[in-house]
Amino acid sequence: MRYDVDGERLWARLMAMAKIGATPEGGSCRQALSDEDEAGRALFLGWCAARGYQFRRDRIGNLLLRRAGRNPEAGPVLIGSHLDTQPTGGRFDGVLGVLAGLEVLETLDDRAVETDRPIDLCVWTNEEGCRFQPAMMGSGVACGALDLETVFAARDHAGISLASEIVRHGYDREPWPRLADAACYLELHIEQGPILEAEAKTIGVVTGGQGIRWYEISVVGEETHAGPVPMALRKDPVPVLAHVISLVQAIGRSDEAARCTIGKIELSPGAINVVPGRADMTVDLRHPDEAVLDAMHRRFMDGLAALGHGHPEIDLNARPTWHSPVVAFDSRLINTVRDSATDRGLPYRDIVSGAGHDAFNLARRVPTTMIFVPCRQGISHNPREYAAPADVTAGANVLLDVVLVQTRLG
Amino acid sequence: MRYDVDGERLWARLMAMAKIGATPEGGSCRQALSDEDEAGRALFLGWCAARGYQFRRDRIGNLLLRRAGRNPEAGPVLIGSHLDTQPTGGRFDGVLGVLAGLEVLETLDDRAVETDRPIDLCVWTNEEGCRFQPAMMGSGVACGALDLETVFAARDHAGISLASEIVRHGYDREPWPRLADAACYLELHIEQGPILEAEAKTIGVVTGGQGIRWYEISVVGEETHAGPVPMALRKDPVPVLAHVISLVQAIGRSDEAARCTIGKIELSPGAINVVPGRADMTVDLRHPDEAVLDAMHRRFMDGLAALGHGHPEIDLNARPTWHSPVVAFDSRLINTVRDSATDRGLPYRDIVSGAGHDAFNLARRVPTTMIFVPCRQGISHNPREYAAPADVTAGANVLLDVVLVQTRLG
Repeated sequence: MRYDVDGERLWARLMAMAKIGATPEGGSCRQALSDEDEAGRALFLGWCAARGYQFRRDRIGNLLLRRAGRNPEAGPVLIGSHLDTQPTGGRFDGVLGVLAGLEVLETLDDRAVETDRPIDLCVWTNEEGCRFQPAMMGSGVACGALDLETVFAARDHAGISLASEIVRHGYDREPWPRLADAACYLELHIEQGPILEAEAKTIGVVTGGQGIRWYEISVVGEETHAGPVPMALRKDPVPVLAHVISLVQAIGRSDEAARCTIGKIELSPGAINVVPGRADMTVDLRHPDEAVLDAMHRRFMDGLAALGHGHPEIDLNARPTWHSPVVAFDSRLINTVRDSATDRGLPYRDIVSGAGHDAFNLARRVPTTMIFVPCRQGISHNPREYAAPADVTAGANVLLDVVLVQTRLG
Repeated sequence: MRYDVDGERLWARLMAMAKIGATPEGGSCRQALSDEDEAGRALFLGWCAARGYQFRRDRIGNLLLRRAGRNPEAGPVLIGSHLDTQPTGGRFDGVLGVLAGLEVLETLDDRAVETDRPIDLCVWTNEEGCRFQPAMMGSGVACGALDLETVFAARDHAGISLASEIVRHGYDREPWPRLADAACYLELHIEQGPILEAEAKTIGVVTGGQGIRWYEISVVGEETHAGPVPMALRKDPVPVLAHVISLVQAIGRSDEAARCTIGKIELSPGAINVVPGRADMTVDLRHPDEAVLDAMHRRFMDGLAALGHGHPEIDLNARPTWHSPVVAFDSRLINTVRDSATDRGLPYRDIVSGAGHDAFNLARRVPTTMIFVPCRQGISHNPREYAAPADVTAGANVLLDVVLVQTRLG
């Protein structure tokens, strides 16, 4: 038996959620644990409460909404994603997976479908990692990849600690539900890349995820006035910064599957007529093959060391801050996604996730896979992020199909 | 007849002024028209009031303190500098010229010396230009190089308009004294470069100033997620930024007297896992020869145009925001400075100012020169900025000598 979700209800909720923290450019800004994030959760929980799903929350603020199954002893099927956004985030990244998950639950209720296993709809705290590092924090804590005490010490740009935000929102008083015994985890997400759209595929069958390495680079020289000091006597970090950019670009261009990004640069003090005393930047390296990512890492560190030797006038420091290894998803689940797309006549292709997702953390604990739908021009983390209603509905239907297969016992 | 200033009094006042807006690193932060700037002025005016100097202020907040001369009809000798600082400013830049000027006035009073011409001690508003652009604003308005209505529209980083700060401090109610008829302008300043210290010279005989050109560069690409989009499909402004840095460095290295600085870079939105949609930076080009500075300007603009053509994926814009032409100081005044240094047995050398100064604006209206004293390691616009008490005193004595010559009539 096959069911279809209510695509119009799903779309209306996506647009309603986008109004929480709406930006003038048409995106949403609900950074993790902010008032806007909390308001988005409240809107979502209101929809859930109307259906009477059992509500739990853990000490990092992850939400779990349970739709009971016939067999309360059976491990649940987990589905979900996140509601937090980038500061210039769009309306689909994360939100789609959460609201499509709710749509799956409600469609089953609408049709009075009973499942063997319970279904837990998960909303993971701080997937984006833009306000508090590292990213995918809530799922990382839930899966034991991150230590609660360590992440509580994280501070945002204004110096506010994550722990104080957890207390402010009242999450510190929550019990601590276990993820153990879950049957599997499924996450629907926009591709955040241009491939599905370019090939006119509706469904991305996600086989795994790129490995990711993050770095903080500092180049310390000597701050002085822009006029009097001859170029040869300066200790200017900016020319070295140009070499770091070139190095990162060269690594990115050496392999078609490599992704290398410098997303943040800061010069101190940052005045037009002052030679900066210091440059700080972030580097993000990604590759779907762990061995190649390792080689990229070594080439980067060696290149920085050579740069440091070549520029004794400055102090060059590189701090690796995060490593998310390459992830392979569960082949049985992947096949179920392929079957659903085939049954529904939806064009699909296998794809590797370029972005990090909570599913990467889950994949280390339970059988996991993801479903991608196209987003216009591959644009994401941007107010212009857009997914067509038909694709959104198609993705939610595939999620529903896979949930129905996976909730079956025996 | 020769007199000596009270070096201890001058030093004590420098240190007292440094406490207004003192930074933990040992510098001062009194950005133009801030509360700290106003507090610094109040301290200074308190010292002036104790001596009964006539106090005037114009609508941009420039202060003029007059010590009367024998002939009230004679044009005044102007001396002065500024009390505002960079956000990470030191204790001498600008402040030395103002407090040494006060010291000159008081030494004349202490010794009951009458001068033919009056002496006007000037404190120019917003020399630094870090909070409100352009720099050397107060002297620029006073000398007619800048239009009052235009500069009133300037806004700081927080969006506060200069006009509203002028109203807040009550400067909008001031009369508008004219600079016309002044006999000359003299400014004592730290070198802000390493040359005098390296050659063990106490006095820099400043023959003129470098020409300065400022630019705002924007590189607009397309913001997207750092993971999924292949390098070849990105519209990433950062690689282009590296080429801009290389271009600016190449121009700076092509001539020993050239100075080229990138003091500010901003990536938007500035998140570790987002390919920035936009990079903004400032460029500062300087040279003591106007023809060479023109050639640098053309090479820079041509290089940017070529970069733009070579990178159709991005939009590269360069906006020249300021041009301060090369300045030649008055040869008669320059000789008077040389004579004083010779008479006092102070080692000296001719020097071109690398930094911009209010004296550049004055030089277009009245005979002008400057006197430099060494600063440690050439460091300026930095909390570690330091000038030795003996050099400070020597500079003030030379200023006093030149004032005594220039206040003589006939």
